[in-house]
Amino acid sequence: MNINIKDYAISESKPIKISSIDTKYEGKIEKEEGFKLFEELVAKLAKLQALLYADGSKSLLVVLQAMDAAGKDSTIRKVFGPVNPQGCKVVSFKNPNSIELAHDFLWRIHQNVPRHGHIGVFNRSYYEDVLIVKVKNLAPKEIVNKRYNHINAFESLLTDEGTKIVKFFLHISKDYQKDRLQERLDTPEKLWKFTTSDIQERSRWEDYQNAYETVFEKCSSPKNPWYIVPAERKWFRNLLVAKVLVETLESMDLKYPKAQFDPKDIVIP
Amino acid sequence: MNINIKDYAISESKPIKISSIDTKYEGKIEKEEGFKLFEELVAKLAKLQALLYADGSKSLLVVLQAMDAAGKDSTIRKVFGPVNPQGCKVVSFKNPNSIELAHDFLWRIHQNVPRHGHIGVFNRSYYEDVLIVKVKNLAPKEIVNKRYNHINAFESLLTDEGTKIVKFFLHISKDYQKDRLQERLDTPEKLWKFTTSDIQERSRWEDYQNAYETVFEKCSSPKNPWYIVPAERKWFRNLLVAKVLVETLESMDLKYPKAQFDPKDIVIP
Repeated sequence: MNINIKDYAISESKPIKISSIDTKYEGKIEKEEGFKLFEELVAKLAKLQALLYADGSKSLLVVLQAMDAAGKDSTIRKVFGPVNPQGCKVVSFKNPNSIELAHDFLWRIHQNVPRHGHIGVFNRSYYEDVLIVKVKNLAPKEIVNKRYNHINAFESLLTDEGTKIVKFFLHISKDYQKDRLQERLDTPEKLWKFTTSDIQERSRWEDYQNAYETVFEKCSSPKNPWYIVPAERKWFRNLLVAKVLVETLESMDLKYPKAQFDPKDIVIP
Repeated sequence: MNINIKDYAISESKPIKISSIDTKYEGKIEKEEGFKLFEELVAKLAKLQALLYADGSKSLLVVLQAMDAAGKDSTIRKVFGPVNPQGCKVVSFKNPNSIELAHDFLWRIHQNVPRHGHIGVFNRSYYEDVLIVKVKNLAPKEIVNKRYNHINAFESLLTDEGTKIVKFFLHISKDYQKDRLQERLDTPEKLWKFTTSDIQERSRWEDYQNAYETVFEKCSSPKNPWYIVPAERKWFRNLLVAKVLVETLESMDLKYPKAQFDPKDIVIP
């Protein structure tokens, strides 16, 4: 397959201009071939998840971030749909409640990290605490500024204790968002997803893009890279996410546990 | 009062020999005066806890570590007994269960940190993950070695987000422990606290002392010092712990929230 996931990874701390990164895949793979490749990858993903579960000593945490209407929900449905839900939990982080706000910003997050053997998918995440919180001044600046280091330390903790983290940013343009939001307004079954606050958030588009650039600069490393996913062709978005997940799981050295007995010695009575 | 809490604090990273630190207070305060001072301090502590609760923007986390039979339970009963339990929660960390073991070592800890306005007391803590876990090889050495940094990062997170941490080591000699364990064997109401594993742990006394020395060297800072409490005179042990807590709370700049109205304008109908 003509995709090198490294082309989409940010693996080191350096300034980045996301406006210079494509939001639309323009490579050689055709849509039809892409669908076929995706089906193969999703089948592999389901098998690897079963192996992760059996291995039981490691876990995978998938962090999904994006501007509104970029397709987070649909990515989750498409990519994780075929995965056994017994070993896969999706957690959506909405506005923190009063008990959550009475603790550090990672308190509610840490409770929801996947146990060993499981995949955890974060639909939005602790990164919101340096994105919306920063853009809308929901916490003092000096507290927000310290959070990048706290995030890196938290990710190191998880990594060192057996949780592999993969972070995706579904990258779209402001025009694409407009079309998607209009689609929600025009489609009765999608209307429930629209709120007037979407318009307010959209008006801060540049602030959000800048906040994301700071995240990518401060919170990327070889062990815990960000993947910037061109998300305006849905089939490619899903394909790239699935490919990264498969390659990540394949790199985790997962094994079926050795039996403590010789199966030949066992006679089922 | 003739006690300077700084004399008992380890506030920087440096090698330390705890066998050279007194386990028994031999200063100028007499027991009777000590009792009187303690009563005053505990009354102050109760008032400061009410202020912490009203302020509602910060919390206090008290970490209590010691060898077996050094008096952790009795310290908690004496010092925190008079504090309003609505704003004070004691959490004892025993052997981790299977779900806890399937997560990083700070997962069960983080869930139990105090919310703002509250005092949390940890009877044993995440430090066990570099003490008993290290001494008894319950996790791979290379994982344990990374935990000191993870602990420091975790404490920085809590500190930066509003939780003050105070760490106490109740310091006793091996002879003193022998007397206390014998007392448990000889006293029907204390016998339940004795287990044969106490003898096993006691046989590793030196290993534990060394593991504690590493903790004090690697996890002490001006913001999050360890206090080494000479614990063989119970009245002084309680006195020093109460004094550190009172001075810590006094340093936290706690305030009753300003009323959003003028009380004179309010007429109760």
